[in-house]
Amino acid sequence: MGTTQLESVPEPKYWHLKTVLTEALDSEFSVGQILPNERELAARFGVARATLRQALEQLELEGRLHRRRGVGTTVAPPRVGVAVGSEQHAWPGADDAWRPVDCTVAVPPGAVAGLLETGRDEQVQTVRRSRVTHGQPVAAELLYVPDVSVPDLSAIDAPSGAARAGAVLRELQHLHLEGRDQAVELGSASAEDAKELDRLPGAPVLVVTTRYYAEGRTAAVSVATYRADTCRLTFGDAGGVEIHHDPERRAS
Amino acid sequence: MGTTQLESVPEPKYWHLKTVLTEALDSEFSVGQILPNERELAARFGVARATLRQALEQLELEGRLHRRRGVGTTVAPPRVGVAVGSEQHAWPGADDAWRPVDCTVAVPPGAVAGLLETGRDEQVQTVRRSRVTHGQPVAAELLYVPDVSVPDLSAIDAPSGAARAGAVLRELQHLHLEGRDQAVELGSASAEDAKELDRLPGAPVLVVTTRYYAEGRTAAVSVATYRADTCRLTFGDAGGVEIHHDPERRAS
Repeated sequence: MGTTQLESVPEPKYWHLKTVLTEALDSEFSVGQILPNERELAARFGVARATLRQALEQLELEGRLHRRRGVGTTVAPPRVGVAVGSEQHAWPGADDAWRPVDCTVAVPPGAVAGLLETGRDEQVQTVRRSRVTHGQPVAAELLYVPDVSVPDLSAIDAPSGAARAGAVLRELQHLHLEGRDQAVELGSASAEDAKELDRLPGAPVLVVTTRYYAEGRTAAVSVATYRADTCRLTFGDAGGVEIHHDPERRAS
Repeated sequence: MGTTQLESVPEPKYWHLKTVLTEALDSEFSVGQILPNERELAARFGVARATLRQALEQLELEGRLHRRRGVGTTVAPPRVGVAVGSEQHAWPGADDAWRPVDCTVAVPPGAVAGLLETGRDEQVQTVRRSRVTHGQPVAAELLYVPDVSVPDLSAIDAPSGAARAGAVLRELQHLHLEGRDQAVELGSASAEDAKELDRLPGAPVLVVTTRYYAEGRTAAVSVATYRADTCRLTFGDAGGVEIHHDPERRAS
């Protein structure tokens, strides 16, 4: 990382600095390496600390850097591709990517209740699952299943916990799955999700909402929260796009 | 919006404030309405300005609020569902959602070159397109097409601009599309994208990378940048999940 001073350019200073830092990360640093501290970096690039911080924040948002209290700023590994849309015709629980954690009975959020067409204060089976990839927690899910989708559930002797979650998933698979829709949007981690994902509350997350159809209605709704810093969500049957994050565009 | 003082709670103060504000937005404010200024809000809820700002930032990230210099903070409309994965077997340009803007010949970013298996300094056709939904710019795209995918292009008399872009898209449709993969990840808007999307550089965006396969190889790569504040990306043939953003989960 040289001592290049930034010349004045029409784009915001921190943006240009970000580009320069990106090139330095690519050419001079390896994954996991700790960057010099902010004071040193600001001096080397001839910028104010505030400008440097803005650039570092951008790089963190883009998944290029990890910043952790007590550790410092390290070069992040490439984002992990996490298959989201490859199991077009499978119920949740039919593959092994997710681990059932718990199951409670609760009134779902209003938007979910609207999709499920449940009554205002109607409780549904609420299965919590978590997903780990390469030993790292990458996603937390709440799966909402109305009783009408799992009519035989009451007969099963598993009042709560992972066993109950597993029972709900097995019952669900008795229905013929007709299709599903998915939506992806930006959100911020709730306190509960943050704990599970090893992030701070409010950290950016990608929220994937999946609606499962059976018997002509919405039989279940999944709201899954993926870490936005480490995950790239892949869709498609061929295993996803193997592209490393590269937000810079040299073409113009 | 009452004058409720926040009691001390185990979760971060701004997070609890965010929850309280969300409820107030749902029950007392309408879309487009301007919120009281920060000083007033902080006083009403009995919190420091810094805490209030954190909560407002979260709500902006979640698409609940718009904050604009000179206008103030307004209640955002529900996010717009933008279909991303519904045209499983169509080349770009085969539908009307995108408008060709320009076409240049340039060396693609390294990651794209890797997917296209083009040489290190090999130039490709670079089509820029934009997407408008309900009169609002929602996405900007760069579509990278190597010459091998459009062998008859040189015969066409359109050296640049939207006409050239259209010619590339038409030529591409002569190939038999075998499939495609998609990936979604969080990014930050480049200066150029920001201008097109009516955002500030660095604003959070959802980056959708699509790889198109034909003749046993990657025939084209699209990198599309969607506004994360106003867009919900929908996947699936049934038109997408009609769910309003609701990151709060009442179940536990």
